[in-house]
Amino acid sequence: MTDAAELTRALIRCPSVTPDEGGALTLLQGLLGEAGFDCTRVDRNGTANLFARWGAKGAARSFGFNGHTDVVPPGNPDSWTHPPFSGHLDDDGMIWGRGATDMKSGVAAFVAAAIDFVTRTPPDGAVILTITGDEEGPARDGTRAILDWMDSEGERMSVCLVGEPSNPETFGEMIKIGRRGSVTYRVTARGVQGHVAYPHRTRNPLHALIGFLNDLTATPLDQGSAHFDPSGLQVTTVDCGNTATNVVPETATAVFNIRFNDLHDPDSLDDMLLGRAQAITEATGVTLDLDASVTGDSFLTAPGPLVDLVAGVVEAETGLRPVLSTTGGTSDARFVKDHCPVVEFGLVGRFMHEVDERVPADQIRALQRVYHRILQGYFG
Amino acid sequence: MTDAAELTRALIRCPSVTPDEGGALTLLQGLLGEAGFDCTRVDRNGTANLFARWGAKGAARSFGFNGHTDVVPPGNPDSWTHPPFSGHLDDDGMIWGRGATDMKSGVAAFVAAAIDFVTRTPPDGAVILTITGDEEGPARDGTRAILDWMDSEGERMSVCLVGEPSNPETFGEMIKIGRRGSVTYRVTARGVQGHVAYPHRTRNPLHALIGFLNDLTATPLDQGSAHFDPSGLQVTTVDCGNTATNVVPETATAVFNIRFNDLHDPDSLDDMLLGRAQAITEATGVTLDLDASVTGDSFLTAPGPLVDLVAGVVEAETGLRPVLSTTGGTSDARFVKDHCPVVEFGLVGRFMHEVDERVPADQIRALQRVYHRILQGYFG
Repeated sequence: MTDAAELTRALIRCPSVTPDEGGALTLLQGLLGEAGFDCTRVDRNGTANLFARWGAKGAARSFGFNGHTDVVPPGNPDSWTHPPFSGHLDDDGMIWGRGATDMKSGVAAFVAAAIDFVTRTPPDGAVILTITGDEEGPARDGTRAILDWMDSEGERMSVCLVGEPSNPETFGEMIKIGRRGSVTYRVTARGVQGHVAYPHRTRNPLHALIGFLNDLTATPLDQGSAHFDPSGLQVTTVDCGNTATNVVPETATAVFNIRFNDLHDPDSLDDMLLGRAQAITEATGVTLDLDASVTGDSFLTAPGPLVDLVAGVVEAETGLRPVLSTTGGTSDARFVKDHCPVVEFGLVGRFMHEVDERVPADQIRALQRVYHRILQGYFG
Repeated sequence: MTDAAELTRALIRCPSVTPDEGGALTLLQGLLGEAGFDCTRVDRNGTANLFARWGAKGAARSFGFNGHTDVVPPGNPDSWTHPPFSGHLDDDGMIWGRGATDMKSGVAAFVAAAIDFVTRTPPDGAVILTITGDEEGPARDGTRAILDWMDSEGERMSVCLVGEPSNPETFGEMIKIGRRGSVTYRVTARGVQGHVAYPHRTRNPLHALIGFLNDLTATPLDQGSAHFDPSGLQVTTVDCGNTATNVVPETATAVFNIRFNDLHDPDSLDDMLLGRAQAITEATGVTLDLDASVTGDSFLTAPGPLVDLVAGVVEAETGLRPVLSTTGGTSDARFVKDHCPVVEFGLVGRFMHEVDERVPADQIRALQRVYHRILQGYFG
């Protein structure tokens, strides 16, 4: 049996800080190839990516996995209790290093489970792994490059499991079945400059901007939906730079980010915001220009066979009935969802991106068992 | 008879950009001394000031005048139709140059009126001129220095007329009988930084600050009082400088200025604002620190003999019944009001501080007549 904990340690020793491949994909390609997987490097614009399929291309049932071997920088290595690329295993069974949680362990668990599964009980179908070297960076030539290549080659996953850490505190408590979308707006308010003592000759862009932002922050965008928390809006900066305390400025800017659920989409948000901005302009004479940058749509893999399968296995393995959640930031699931149904289950996310990132070896082995049983269930 | 228009031209030719005396006070001291005024230069910390008294020190009735000979910089001289320190008189009877309106003309009109008045009809009392070389700058060692010196010397004005331009558009339409106070606040909001996707782990200082400022700008401070417009509040800057669109910042700052009427004073405003800030802090966990800088209290010279005298003369000379106003910015009247009752009447303020500042010579002569009749009325 392949040991996912030892494989995690080997992967940690590959210094694969985005965008460096660091030997991680090469290591996986060797193992998978040896086990009969058909491996293809799908590199694009300097980003290394690995596609691996066991079984026939175009199989009716193909179970997919998505993950990444790149990691965020370790920061100051001297701040670490054990060197960040050591994969040190301590006496308490803890594995230390950058990527221990996010997510060399998740990749190792699936690779180990997949190799053991196809070796012991060759399924009637395909097992596909899509592993990228850029999830932590711009993510333009990572999972998207693999999916583009798969489209052009006629490669398909029927369903996909993303192995990102999905549990906030306790292993088994949470499966991610979707994510909120994210859009960032930059607002520029333009008024009429003048002396503070003669405000009737001015149009204060800050007053209009404050009123606009106050409406947005004081009123919830919605109350949430069946599978989503309420959408959230956070103002991240307001800037004017006026140093004269007796002058009403001409312009001011603000940036805010919206994490939106399935009650909204970028177009509906745009309509709502433009309407509110227009009302402010009509009332104040201050123009509010909005510039949107969408970084992800909201999506949901509605409860059904895939979600039931994963939730059932997690409960059987951990004794916990996992919450079906759509909380948190974004992941590459936002790309995979356009290809096939996708859910996310992995380790506990604690210590992600932190100094002294670490994970219990036993938790990796538990995740390996979960993945193995999911494969058994899918093809059983 | 002394011609205030010609004296204005002579004063404009003195390049007395704050803090330079430029020969302006020296010129006046010569004229006033020749006419029997007892002149004293009351310079302090490099600021030139002139005190001049005709009549006995400590006279029961002493009519005072306050004005300034310093001017704001001309900007690019090439932008002017006529050189800014030329005092050019054009064919339409217009005098051009920096200080033509604000306020070498007002000083010239009073000096001319005072010399003619004491020469022709020596009054039973004193005429006092307090003329500073720093009203446009920090104003720390200008009129305040003269008043401090007068206190220490036992010099008193019974009443005082400030010769600043008081009319918005038409000569004779407005007397200033008080001014609103001015206080500037700097607010620093401190919250808890974090990821925009996990707002429950953050406390957004911008949301608290926006709510605080929105309350202040959306609700009038008052409805005005018998002699004052409503108090006004203008936000002059909001700054955060956060460039990460997925991060809730830790701190943000704002500056706002309040022009307040006689329904408020700095202490009552402070109490109100601290109470509102405290409520925001209790609701949000974001602290709001307020730092106040008071640049002037509000004051009012209530309608009575002085106001009636000035208003009556203005109406007799111009045919207009002047409005008794407390609008506009600050002037040195905010210092004089602690010494004696003070009102302000001068020229039309149009073109103040602008390129091509200019004034009709006839308007200066009309102001000279007004001042002369005020002196006659006061001592008559």
